[in-house]
Amino acid sequence: MKTVQEAAKQISDAERILIVCHVSPDGDAIGSMLGLGLTLSEAQKRVILCCADPVPSQYRYLPHWETIARSCSERCDLLVTLDCSDLDRLGAVYDPSTLHDVPIVNIDHHTTNVEFGDVNWVEPEAAATAQMLVRLVHGLGISLNADIATCLLTGILTDTLGFRTSATTPEVMETAIQLMKAGASLPELTDRIFGRRPMRTIEMWATTLQNLHLEGHILWTEITQRMRRRIGYQENGDAGLANFLSTANEADIAIIFDEQQDGQVNVSMRCVPGYDVSQVAFDLGGGGHAQAAGCTLSGPLEGARTRVLSMLQKSWSMQNSSR
Amino acid sequence: MKTVQEAAKQISDAERILIVCHVSPDGDAIGSMLGLGLTLSEAQKRVILCCADPVPSQYRYLPHWETIARSCSERCDLLVTLDCSDLDRLGAVYDPSTLHDVPIVNIDHHTTNVEFGDVNWVEPEAAATAQMLVRLVHGLGISLNADIATCLLTGILTDTLGFRTSATTPEVMETAIQLMKAGASLPELTDRIFGRRPMRTIEMWATTLQNLHLEGHILWTEITQRMRRRIGYQENGDAGLANFLSTANEADIAIIFDEQQDGQVNVSMRCVPGYDVSQVAFDLGGGGHAQAAGCTLSGPLEGARTRVLSMLQKSWSMQNSSR
Repeated sequence: MKTVQEAAKQISDAERILIVCHVSPDGDAIGSMLGLGLTLSEAQKRVILCCADPVPSQYRYLPHWETIARSCSERCDLLVTLDCSDLDRLGAVYDPSTLHDVPIVNIDHHTTNVEFGDVNWVEPEAAATAQMLVRLVHGLGISLNADIATCLLTGILTDTLGFRTSATTPEVMETAIQLMKAGASLPELTDRIFGRRPMRTIEMWATTLQNLHLEGHILWTEITQRMRRRIGYQENGDAGLANFLSTANEADIAIIFDEQQDGQVNVSMRCVPGYDVSQVAFDLGGGGHAQAAGCTLSGPLEGARTRVLSMLQKSWSMQNSSR
Repeated sequence: MKTVQEAAKQISDAERILIVCHVSPDGDAIGSMLGLGLTLSEAQKRVILCCADPVPSQYRYLPHWETIARSCSERCDLLVTLDCSDLDRLGAVYDPSTLHDVPIVNIDHHTTNVEFGDVNWVEPEAAATAQMLVRLVHGLGISLNADIATCLLTGILTDTLGFRTSATTPEVMETAIQLMKAGASLPELTDRIFGRRPMRTIEMWATTLQNLHLEGHILWTEITQRMRRRIGYQENGDAGLANFLSTANEADIAIIFDEQQDGQVNVSMRCVPGYDVSQVAFDLGGGGHAQAAGCTLSGPLEGARTRVLSMLQKSWSMQNSSR
């Protein structure tokens, strides 16, 4: 419990606080950033929220999402990083020339966190960074309100896939009840996060599901630029598809290779409990959790695919032989 | 609260209790039946569990599922029906010649329940029949154990789609925590219910998703016997597919027409909050909830489809004009 107090103390002592989350932000990144931002505004701090990538349209229901900037030139006396396993995950937002002497409070739940902060509050067993922040809000003496609760419940729902991951303990459920009682609507948020997708995304599912490959215990598929052009699909990949593939009884690991316009390949990995894909993701410059991780590789698609599949086959065999 | 006490009293006064759930049982039907059965065994009752259809393989992890019989010739002095909106839903298990003078305790949460029992404890706002039963277990003075909790949490998870329906209140979450603390494993159950499907089912998704029809605000697809033969898919339809279709932004209603071997057509209907498909399902001899309902029609497929689509188009227009 020492680090939540240390984090609360550093934050209480600061006046102008820059909060940053990781590139390609998900619901835990954006929800945590807005939830903490609103909390610190209540505590009369000057708060700057910043993310190198835009807020995905899916999360633009969150209160004050439009206050999140893409870069920051303002002077600040504390940098709080949320849900980031290393400084690279901040992307272009982290400019060492202006930020090198600003102390960092690193709040994260990734098992791959490299503890780059001055205060490192890292709890790999936490279900979400937002789950940790509920304790920080209490530690700062601020009352949860409906807006803060909506942001933080979004983070928990995103990272637990709606209370479905093995990190979902009774404590996580109790935190969710707290947030619901503070005004967050669970059914509304669930519907926003998991319950809606454009027909085009469903067409993308149809196309990729026609093109599944089961190699040993690894099930994979890909989204190519050619496919995207053919069905007119230009969104970011749908995390739901990777989760869906990992439900196949015959597979221990599921992967989606998603070719980007610039030729880079986003790789989403999932595995069933008992296996771990985070180490391979980390070795490839990415990160994540045991059951869900990812990385971005340079193209072409075939090369990236061969590399990832070979590393995952090896990792699967090793994990399997040590069981 | 009166009816939970009435139900508890009738059950306490009985000695030989027949518990029956509906045909084509789902996780709430099977979980509720086993959960109440185990509770009454703890209360030293003679309990007979009966369902006209076999326990789906998906739920064969539930403790003592193999004690569920397909028919019952034993004399009993009380019939408890679970999760059944009318007597027809008991199927061949309900034989009026032997059961006509046996009092019925009807425990259900379907809005379409016709109150056919001597005691009718019907709570349409309850998230699941299993959710109601947790209160009955307490009312009977029995302590929750891990087996009872596993059965009842299965019921709640199935019917709330894993805490995703609008019926998921803080009370439902609190009940889930109770059951987790009594020994039910949320991640394990979630994985059993939502996290696993055979590759063949994924191939069935791929095939049906290639064949989507959006008519007005209704998105539909079908599983024909020809498709089934082609991909070697013989399981019951996957409820996840209907739920998935209903995530399409462009649709208010999603339907799957699933042609059975005997030519009958199982119809699964889903709709977004604000619409109600239960009335159409009820009018067609089925039942369910506002957002998820179903019925079984005689074939051929085309006729059943035309009939359902026309009724749902009308119902959609009426609901839309009264908004």
